[in-house]
Amino acid sequence: MKAWQLDDYPAGNDFAAAIHLVDAPTPSAAEGEVVIANELLSLDAGTRMWMTPRTDSYQPPIPLGSVVPGLVLGRVLESRAEGFAAGDLVRAFGQWAEISVVRPELSGLVVLDDGVADPRQHLGVLGMNGWTALVGIAEVGRTRPGETVLVSAAAGATGILAAQIARILGARVIGIAGGPRKCAFLTDELGLDAAVDHRGADVEGAIAAAAPNGVDVYFDNVGGPLLDAVLPNMAHYGRIALCGLVAGYAEAQPGPRRFDQILARRLQITGFFSPDFMDRGPELTDRLRGWLDDGRLTMPFDETAGLANVLGAYAKLFTGGNVGKVIVRL
Amino acid sequence: MKAWQLDDYPAGNDFAAAIHLVDAPTPSAAEGEVVIANELLSLDAGTRMWMTPRTDSYQPPIPLGSVVPGLVLGRVLESRAEGFAAGDLVRAFGQWAEISVVRPELSGLVVLDDGVADPRQHLGVLGMNGWTALVGIAEVGRTRPGETVLVSAAAGATGILAAQIARILGARVIGIAGGPRKCAFLTDELGLDAAVDHRGADVEGAIAAAAPNGVDVYFDNVGGPLLDAVLPNMAHYGRIALCGLVAGYAEAQPGPRRFDQILARRLQITGFFSPDFMDRGPELTDRLRGWLDDGRLTMPFDETAGLANVLGAYAKLFTGGNVGKVIVRL
Repeated sequence: MKAWQLDDYPAGNDFAAAIHLVDAPTPSAAEGEVVIANELLSLDAGTRMWMTPRTDSYQPPIPLGSVVPGLVLGRVLESRAEGFAAGDLVRAFGQWAEISVVRPELSGLVVLDDGVADPRQHLGVLGMNGWTALVGIAEVGRTRPGETVLVSAAAGATGILAAQIARILGARVIGIAGGPRKCAFLTDELGLDAAVDHRGADVEGAIAAAAPNGVDVYFDNVGGPLLDAVLPNMAHYGRIALCGLVAGYAEAQPGPRRFDQILARRLQITGFFSPDFMDRGPELTDRLRGWLDDGRLTMPFDETAGLANVLGAYAKLFTGGNVGKVIVRL
Repeated sequence: MKAWQLDDYPAGNDFAAAIHLVDAPTPSAAEGEVVIANELLSLDAGTRMWMTPRTDSYQPPIPLGSVVPGLVLGRVLESRAEGFAAGDLVRAFGQWAEISVVRPELSGLVVLDDGVADPRQHLGVLGMNGWTALVGIAEVGRTRPGETVLVSAAAGATGILAAQIARILGARVIGIAGGPRKCAFLTDELGLDAAVDHRGADVEGAIAAAAPNGVDVYFDNVGGPLLDAVLPNMAHYGRIALCGLVAGYAEAQPGPRRFDQILARRLQITGFFSPDFMDRGPELTDRLRGWLDDGRLTMPFDETAGLANVLGAYAKLFTGGNVGKVIVRL
């Protein structure tokens, strides 16, 4: 089979020099393992954090020479683990390859409801992006009706859900995205109250204009200079749910220059990480499913066909090329 | 009477060029006001934050030409406000002067228990420093028995109480201070489990050695480069109670270089500000009073005599010259 192998840690976002499509032995299941025919790969910016020799991130670096790990959706080909049978529709942390081999207890392997109208939503609204958005807005951010919520990377997979969930919970929602096309999408298609173009000349001023009473909850996927434009715009006692730091995955960023505002405005910044919610998946998915079914929550997909095209699709996450969830269909 | 007038915003810590001892009219009480004969001035690093033209701090800058505001302890000379009578022992946000004039509702004016053995403790254990330490350790930091708590400026007025309160609540406590004398004080006199000298060569390594399982709660009074030495030493899900940023009051500091660790370690940073607890003062003071009376909580004083010597005493807060609470006796 074909698989994407990490041969080197990428410099910046030059993935093609570091990750190569190789021929690998077609796997079979050892005792306790499940083999999955991958149908969809979920491409997630966070994976970039493990494509580094640094040992102080979420988890250990991906070993050089191994296949890149990632969330996949597919059908079980062979199971030697209890609770999983050939033909099951499943989701797991598998591999960027035609076939994934996983151990249930290490991969979050779960059998999915085969009756969801668009099964891709198991990688969207009903998956890790949905959990992250819901936990970040409702629990970490403690969003209350009438509050002002700001979301960065609001056209990205997690941001797009965070912004919609904040609206559902009764907040006034401002999305940040790159360029007029995405900003128009946020207000016209997604129905947000305002949009701010982070490529604009005066981002701090644009946020101030969109949030004249300050930002109560900032759902941040980005970090970097954008955070400095937000900090002086936070309302007193505001909460920042720090979901990602995509601005700094390829190279370290200076810390936020306006860090002093955390004290001056009595802010709370909380870093959180979706795999921490794996145990709560069923409960969170139930809540998200209700909003998906009644049409209040949606995830558009940026779908690429063919395993060979993974790297081009992955790069979109770092260049702002996508609206919604980037997936690859095999 | 004599009073310290802010004639300019200080450059760095050059207070003498900016703040001058002047002759001012001896005040009398207008309707709704109380006049206090100051006996003790509480000198607090936070006041430096208002000695600036910046408008994005806690509160508006101190107007140039006015007397420097500050917490005072004294006796009422004249009252035209209900609930206060001549002779009462009181505490309030008054002025660096021989006499303070305050409005109760704007100054936190409170009549004090005249029966406390050392009345100075109304500016120490039983005052704002005590409230801040208790709220920061118990509520913002959510310290649990057996956890590791790290306190910066641990020989300073708030840190010294935070460290002791963390011990009372059953934590293992490490104090950070400048120089071997203060570090010896922390372990030998205060009974902390370990001390780290922030003037040492490898502060990050020293913290790692003192907290091999990571720091669960960091009570930070300082910010600046020290925070960068702490962030990689935080335990996962650790909490940082951000009480002060004294490293950056005189001039802006770069943001924490290791800000990424907030995400990687799922940390929570919360800025908090003692005047926010004014309404909770009686409840907090009761709890602190119990620990003061049974000898478990103490505040040493660095006492200077004479209003004329205020600026020299104040500078100690920024040069690490003090152990415990800096006060001036008039």
